[in-house]
Amino acid sequence: MSVAEETGATRVEVRSAGGGYDVLVGPGLLQRLPVLLEDVVDAGRFAIISDSNVAPLHGDAALEVLREAGLDAALFTFPAGEASKTRKSWSILTDELLEAGFGRDACVVAVGGGVTTDLAGFVAATYLRGIPVVQVPTSYLAMIDASVGGKTGVDVKAGKNLVGAFHPPRLVVADPEVISTLPSGERAQGLVEALKHGAILDLRHYEELVQELDALLDANPVVATSLIADSVSLKAAVVTEDEFESGYRQVLNFGHTLGHALEAASGYALGHGSAVAWGMLLEAEVGERMGITEPGTRARLEPVLSPFAGSLPSSIALGEVLPYLRTDKKVRGGKPRVVLLRRIGEVDPGTRWSHEAPEELLEAVLREALERA
Amino acid sequence: MSVAEETGATRVEVRSAGGGYDVLVGPGLLQRLPVLLEDVVDAGRFAIISDSNVAPLHGDAALEVLREAGLDAALFTFPAGEASKTRKSWSILTDELLEAGFGRDACVVAVGGGVTTDLAGFVAATYLRGIPVVQVPTSYLAMIDASVGGKTGVDVKAGKNLVGAFHPPRLVVADPEVISTLPSGERAQGLVEALKHGAILDLRHYEELVQELDALLDANPVVATSLIADSVSLKAAVVTEDEFESGYRQVLNFGHTLGHALEAASGYALGHGSAVAWGMLLEAEVGERMGITEPGTRARLEPVLSPFAGSLPSSIALGEVLPYLRTDKKVRGGKPRVVLLRRIGEVDPGTRWSHEAPEELLEAVLREALERA
Repeated sequence: MSVAEETGATRVEVRSAGGGYDVLVGPGLLQRLPVLLEDVVDAGRFAIISDSNVAPLHGDAALEVLREAGLDAALFTFPAGEASKTRKSWSILTDELLEAGFGRDACVVAVGGGVTTDLAGFVAATYLRGIPVVQVPTSYLAMIDASVGGKTGVDVKAGKNLVGAFHPPRLVVADPEVISTLPSGERAQGLVEALKHGAILDLRHYEELVQELDALLDANPVVATSLIADSVSLKAAVVTEDEFESGYRQVLNFGHTLGHALEAASGYALGHGSAVAWGMLLEAEVGERMGITEPGTRARLEPVLSPFAGSLPSSIALGEVLPYLRTDKKVRGGKPRVVLLRRIGEVDPGTRWSHEAPEELLEAVLREALERA
Repeated sequence: MSVAEETGATRVEVRSAGGGYDVLVGPGLLQRLPVLLEDVVDAGRFAIISDSNVAPLHGDAALEVLREAGLDAALFTFPAGEASKTRKSWSILTDELLEAGFGRDACVVAVGGGVTTDLAGFVAATYLRGIPVVQVPTSYLAMIDASVGGKTGVDVKAGKNLVGAFHPPRLVVADPEVISTLPSGERAQGLVEALKHGAILDLRHYEELVQELDALLDANPVVATSLIADSVSLKAAVVTEDEFESGYRQVLNFGHTLGHALEAASGYALGHGSAVAWGMLLEAEVGERMGITEPGTRARLEPVLSPFAGSLPSSIALGEVLPYLRTDKKVRGGKPRVVLLRRIGEVDPGTRWSHEAPEELLEAVLREALERA
């Protein structure tokens, strides 16, 4: 019987050029962390990385459980918030690990939300040219999205996630019991990515999420385990097929072209989940007007996504949104591209899974949304 | 007929998890850069990175030849010297590429010595989570060692190359005609790594180098082509067998445990080549005293390596060297480890290709060397 089976966790397998890894989802997994770690890495020392909010809740607990199991572990923290996802925080954490004498036999254990999994993953990716990382996501966003797929990195002035590396984890340990410690606004933000997985890949997952939204927002661990595992399975299938985002993985960017542009133009006053919810609605509109998305799709998404989207900050000016469309990572030959649905649960293949969208159309759809703000 | 064959270059193949790449060695290759690049990358734009010394000699020329061939290219420079191999230079170069709008279809072309190939390689490794790099080494050190094997990175306060990534190039283009522009001191520094390849792996290569040292120091392109290709072949076989330095690749660290410690303790006043030459001599001594290296090996290396080693700066204090031994990347369980020869041309396998050396012995050998300084 494998260690994962012993814990009763749900196991999702992700295949990767580096050999693949498991995502384990189950209540109480954090208590089993030592045996789970020892099962996947032959490490002499463990560097737990958490932010200043999560460290007192779960970082300290992880440290204690590792030490009780006789493992050599230390906790490193950084100030909570997206503003910490920088080259500077990465440098400071790296230097702290070096100062503490962590060598090539070390393993990073990232305990936190998406900022932590991205930042600690990038520390691991570049520490002595790469040491293993185990991701222990503590938010819906990190469990469903950020910790799966091997993307690590930091934000720079020119935009989010523009510096980083693909560094697949050795293991992802998602314990839905920790969601109860997550502020309710952040719970909602993370569920938007699950709804996106349903919208692009699986109508049934989308409908189950809609049905269970209240239980998920209540952090019901049984419902959360089942739906997190389903959502991770959908993402795992995509990143297994296209690990380095050369084609099919683009589908995960549904809602993100317009979403990212709105998020950036708001100076990040608009949360990532709200921005993606807006992006999904507006890109459904774009797809309908281009005759690619089934008519009425936006109208069907609206009652589900609007509560997550909220209202757009009135400070966002159209002229500030448009430049971000032109510097989007998906731009080819200077033209912005969007991922478009055929209908809820199915993406249109387009050309390499995205479409060139007329700038006038993107501008018109954005203008209408901003005028109503 | 392949593009490489058309150029009449000598081709050395390196296999890598990412698919492998060629090292081409031949006079006049720089003129053929456009066709060589187009053969290995499907890139829309090329970012040439050079230091302030090499840019006017070869960076500008590379830019011109690319533009003449109708390729979209730009040149980015940084101040020459090991002091530039930092996270700060990496940040500045990254931001300059972002500012210039380089996207995922870009390719970095590193034109320069080991600092440039390491630094530009790390920029490429982390730019938008990784874009291709083609290495165009312009020094013996970079041709024989730094540009081959996929190691990229920067120095930090705690030591050299402690932050970085494995990011194999798509191609390495070594044109020995550029060696004539290299200051003679730097020519000598680079040849030490070639002598090391011979000392650990191939007596015949070692002896050929010894015989041709004058021609190599004179930058004779025919002799250089042949011996660079031989030396690269030896290194390629090692990194093909153990890309991520989990075992056999350790052999390349012969001379580097004591060499790095002396180099660091001198505040980098001692050049890398001199430091490694010292390291090879002293590690031969260590091996002889441990009964592993054939007696007389140091004495046989001495006449060849002493001119490269030069004299140790009298400012180096033993007490400053020892701490570096304890933070060496090869340390396991707190004990310093050294790669030891059996004889010239053959490494002793030890345990995973290195030996735990008694600290008293390392200290004694270092003390004797420093007392003679």
